[in-house]
Amino acid sequence: MPDAAYDLVIVGAGPAGLSGAIYAARAGLRAVVLDRGVAGGTVMLTPMMDNYLGVGSVKGMALAKEMKAHASRYAEIREGVNVSDVSLCDDIFSVTTDSGSLQAKALLIATGGRHRTLGIPGEERLAGRGVSYCATCDGFLFKGKSVVVVGGGSTALTEAAYLVRLGIDVTLVHRRAEMRAERSLQDDYRSLNGKLALNSVVEEILGEKRVEGVRLRRLDTGRAEVLKCDGAFISIGYEPSNELAKRLGLELNPDGTIKTDRAQRTSMHYVYAAGDITGGVMQAITGAAAGAVAALSAYEDLAKPYWRRAIK
Amino acid sequence: MPDAAYDLVIVGAGPAGLSGAIYAARAGLRAVVLDRGVAGGTVMLTPMMDNYLGVGSVKGMALAKEMKAHASRYAEIREGVNVSDVSLCDDIFSVTTDSGSLQAKALLIATGGRHRTLGIPGEERLAGRGVSYCATCDGFLFKGKSVVVVGGGSTALTEAAYLVRLGIDVTLVHRRAEMRAERSLQDDYRSLNGKLALNSVVEEILGEKRVEGVRLRRLDTGRAEVLKCDGAFISIGYEPSNELAKRLGLELNPDGTIKTDRAQRTSMHYVYAAGDITGGVMQAITGAAAGAVAALSAYEDLAKPYWRRAIK
Repeated sequence: MPDAAYDLVIVGAGPAGLSGAIYAARAGLRAVVLDRGVAGGTVMLTPMMDNYLGVGSVKGMALAKEMKAHASRYAEIREGVNVSDVSLCDDIFSVTTDSGSLQAKALLIATGGRHRTLGIPGEERLAGRGVSYCATCDGFLFKGKSVVVVGGGSTALTEAAYLVRLGIDVTLVHRRAEMRAERSLQDDYRSLNGKLALNSVVEEILGEKRVEGVRLRRLDTGRAEVLKCDGAFISIGYEPSNELAKRLGLELNPDGTIKTDRAQRTSMHYVYAAGDITGGVMQAITGAAAGAVAALSAYEDLAKPYWRRAIK
Repeated sequence: MPDAAYDLVIVGAGPAGLSGAIYAARAGLRAVVLDRGVAGGTVMLTPMMDNYLGVGSVKGMALAKEMKAHASRYAEIREGVNVSDVSLCDDIFSVTTDSGSLQAKALLIATGGRHRTLGIPGEERLAGRGVSYCATCDGFLFKGKSVVVVGGGSTALTEAAYLVRLGIDVTLVHRRAEMRAERSLQDDYRSLNGKLALNSVVEEILGEKRVEGVRLRRLDTGRAEVLKCDGAFISIGYEPSNELAKRLGLELNPDGTIKTDRAQRTSMHYVYAAGDITGGVMQAITGAAAGAVAALSAYEDLAKPYWRRAIK
């Protein structure tokens, strides 16, 4: 294999990318982490992190800072670097960024993605203050309170049922008369006596410092009303940042996330993926673990390039 | 489904069990964690943890304490409780312990295991002071130094090659003239010019406060010599604590670890496994992630027991 400046270029400095950097460097790989924004990924956007084992209850921004500091002891982390292209020539990946290109023997894609937003007044201002995009992450905070869930797909119904089971008063708001979610999920939600507001949209999220309610509009009658609630879970889809994966022609899952095996290998040799970009439960702890596994797989493959990898 | 005192009994309070407790409770499950020893699992035995993203460099005992405190906010953790039997009757698991029995709808097995020890003088005393059982965990500390690796199987050869690639002077010590490791691993190690001491055993690990050398005996000549080194990696096998898995008749991997799917489901409905007992890279971060995933799978299955689970 020809020489390259890096053994592993990691794209994305969320938990997956940062943990991957630690494990890569500790395995002797020359690694670098690139992020188009700042390090920390979704953790940066999380007001309080309560479910990352071992850190207790901590502000997301503080944990992101710790994660970055930790990984920085092992590898260079370049923030504000946008990767515009990746190509493969003679077994070397060339990673094109706004500020020049890098060569590497292997690539770890940990680019995450973003939850779709409604784009309505109050949504951004109250994000993390009652507005949430993840029931698994934040549902616990609303025990005994009331929330709306916006969406009509399977994820929305799953999240709504999760919240009802936690003892939360849930109203599911969906713009159409019918939901897209699979039938069994709808039945499950109805059997829990979860409330429904069909033919309705949330036009505004209300509240000073925290969510206090939403303004609902019925699309059939045109009538608007204010529904008091303590939280609004927006569940209208997730957009994986899979541009690089597409450029490389990696095999994707139906939802646009990258398909990997359990060792985080993708359909292309020497390309690994970890974290939210691969789907699953999309938690910081699972991203960190997958990044570690990906780095160890990269080490293993680079150490023994003559080994044939199992056909997936 | 009949009622049970708990939704989920978690056996083992290492990272997998503790993280599972957090996610289970946050999903509204009534969970309890049982451990025959103290909470923390292998983390408790690790002098310094450097690779658990977000906590920097911390004593294993301190991190274990944090993990326990964190999980204790969500579920009861009972230490010093030995589980002697598990049975299933009318869809309820009955977990027998030294101090009574517990009933639960689901079971998370996170019992880990232990690395086989040589049982020679100096080994226990210098554990964590140069004596290690995991190259991925501790190899980095020995960069530029010299170590022996004891063992002749595939894991020993893999670890020895890993250490050589880190720039460590490695001598592999094996009691027989031939190694059991697969041929390609032996070739790889030889191609790296790794040293071999065949027909040899380590009789004692030497050193005051840290490993300073080992006493080697050649079995063919009977001659003993002292080999100076800074570390001794013991790689003679891992014994998964799979007694409960066997009682339940769970499907195991060839190495005795529990077979799971990616959602940490075992071959038996409502039984999950996570952490070192499932094999893989056996790191604290991967155990914590798997515990979280297992708990979310338990939530999902208990919420929808009428769903048919995919046949594995």
